[in-house]
Amino acid sequence: MRWADGFIAADWGTTNRRAYRIDRHGRCEAEFEDGQGILSVPAGGFPAAVAEIRARLGELPLLLAGMIGSNRGWVEAPYVACPASLDDLVAGLAWPDADVAIVPGVSFRDGRRADVMRGEEVQLLGAVADSLVSPDALVCHPGTHNKWALMSGGRIAEFRTVMTGELFNLLKSHSILSELLAAPAAADDAFRAGVREGLGDTDLQAELFAVRARVLLGAVARESAASYTSGLLIGGDVRIGLRDGAPDAVVVMGRPELTALYAAALAEAGVAATELDGETCFLAGIRHIAEHIA
Amino acid sequence: MRWADGFIAADWGTTNRRAYRIDRHGRCEAEFEDGQGILSVPAGGFPAAVAEIRARLGELPLLLAGMIGSNRGWVEAPYVACPASLDDLVAGLAWPDADVAIVPGVSFRDGRRADVMRGEEVQLLGAVADSLVSPDALVCHPGTHNKWALMSGGRIAEFRTVMTGELFNLLKSHSILSELLAAPAAADDAFRAGVREGLGDTDLQAELFAVRARVLLGAVARESAASYTSGLLIGGDVRIGLRDGAPDAVVVMGRPELTALYAAALAEAGVAATELDGETCFLAGIRHIAEHIA
Repeated sequence: MRWADGFIAADWGTTNRRAYRIDRHGRCEAEFEDGQGILSVPAGGFPAAVAEIRARLGELPLLLAGMIGSNRGWVEAPYVACPASLDDLVAGLAWPDADVAIVPGVSFRDGRRADVMRGEEVQLLGAVADSLVSPDALVCHPGTHNKWALMSGGRIAEFRTVMTGELFNLLKSHSILSELLAAPAAADDAFRAGVREGLGDTDLQAELFAVRARVLLGAVARESAASYTSGLLIGGDVRIGLRDGAPDAVVVMGRPELTALYAAALAEAGVAATELDGETCFLAGIRHIAEHIA
Repeated sequence: MRWADGFIAADWGTTNRRAYRIDRHGRCEAEFEDGQGILSVPAGGFPAAVAEIRARLGELPLLLAGMIGSNRGWVEAPYVACPASLDDLVAGLAWPDADVAIVPGVSFRDGRRADVMRGEEVQLLGAVADSLVSPDALVCHPGTHNKWALMSGGRIAEFRTVMTGELFNLLKSHSILSELLAAPAAADDAFRAGVREGLGDTDLQAELFAVRARVLLGAVARESAASYTSGLLIGGDVRIGLRDGAPDAVVVMGRPELTALYAAALAEAGVAATELDGETCFLAGIRHIAEHIA
């Protein structure tokens, strides 16, 4: 199989996967998404899981990114250290099979700081390669684990992960706040009030409980709790992202419903945000990596 | 039934209950604990659940405290506002039946601050009534939701809830940190390092992810993660509790395995801690309330 004739790209995460057939001109011809994340694949089951992707999209080479390259995935693709470029990702590809490559994640160390990403690096470097993002920019990539990545000279110079999405989901699914957080969060007045609280000198561990107490004591409307809590966590996230200095503008990359919330929070902090669809950036990055293989 | 001849006291929480038979001299003659918290009682099922307690401990009047008096419990006992005394609790008793009384919770409001407790008030005021705690003291009451209560003139003057226990349990049971947090947390070197981080200017939302990244990148031992994370959360909790001024000494009241961790964290902050068993304090408070009824 030859990569220049087309290939299959997949963003294979912990709980789901999204696969695309890319033709010889770099166009996406077909795609699907399902819940077959790496945790749902039994031991030794990755060859069969890959065969299933090919059965749906064609007998083509595969280029995989995300948690598939982690120590819980198929074959571990060791982290590439910052500063990391697209060339570094290509050099670090793991090859579980002759026509299957796995993109490595990226790590960052500095004193006590330690951080890792898997999957976002393809989007970040792809966006720069396609000139969607300046080679020197601060990029916010919300998701289960939000990444604040500082791009410098077209490389990922450093980054910091904030567990905002996962914390919100834990609170929504399993905590005493569950009922209050069942409503969808929107970028409304309650959200902006939460953002301002999170941007300030708040005590998150205490403020989360106060959300419920205010409702119980009739101090705020029950309906405002989900947006306020989302704003509180995202506001705290933005405070962390801007702690080393706030640029005039930030790129926010990811799923549109999330980038909209972060753009609203950044506006509250006085920072303009440019939103980019993460899927577009993923396909840009994966095409550039495939070109280096071919 | 007459209260002076003895009664049954129960601390009836969300997920479990603990009941005691108190004789005419105020002694605890028998007790049991089980998982029949209020959430496990079906609609209309409280008379049967109470009958079951009497079948085990005797046909005596019942004095109930905790979430049994919440809007999810049997009969709601509206919160008593701070400053709150034992007399206020007695005046606020709810009576679902002629020989069953439910102790009200306590609320606090001040500007945007809003807080509630149910169950801890019996322990706090009971400890003061039995001279286990000074009438003017800062008391830390760890649990699912830690309470920092400022006692003044023998009353609960104000308090602040910190969601430390629940956050740790959410992370341990359902998060990406689950595997790392499976080990028991102890007041060891890793715990104290976490406390120092939490006492300082840490970014909890980011630091939690760094716990995992440091292990993945080999920067710290996997075995240290549970104690470090426990220390991180408890250190942040202590920072919040002492933010309005650190007294020379703090009383830490609750289950011994938790009070030991908080005492160690307070020591790291330079504050001496006196540990009190929460059950002793509960029985002290419940006896004083029963005396007012009788």
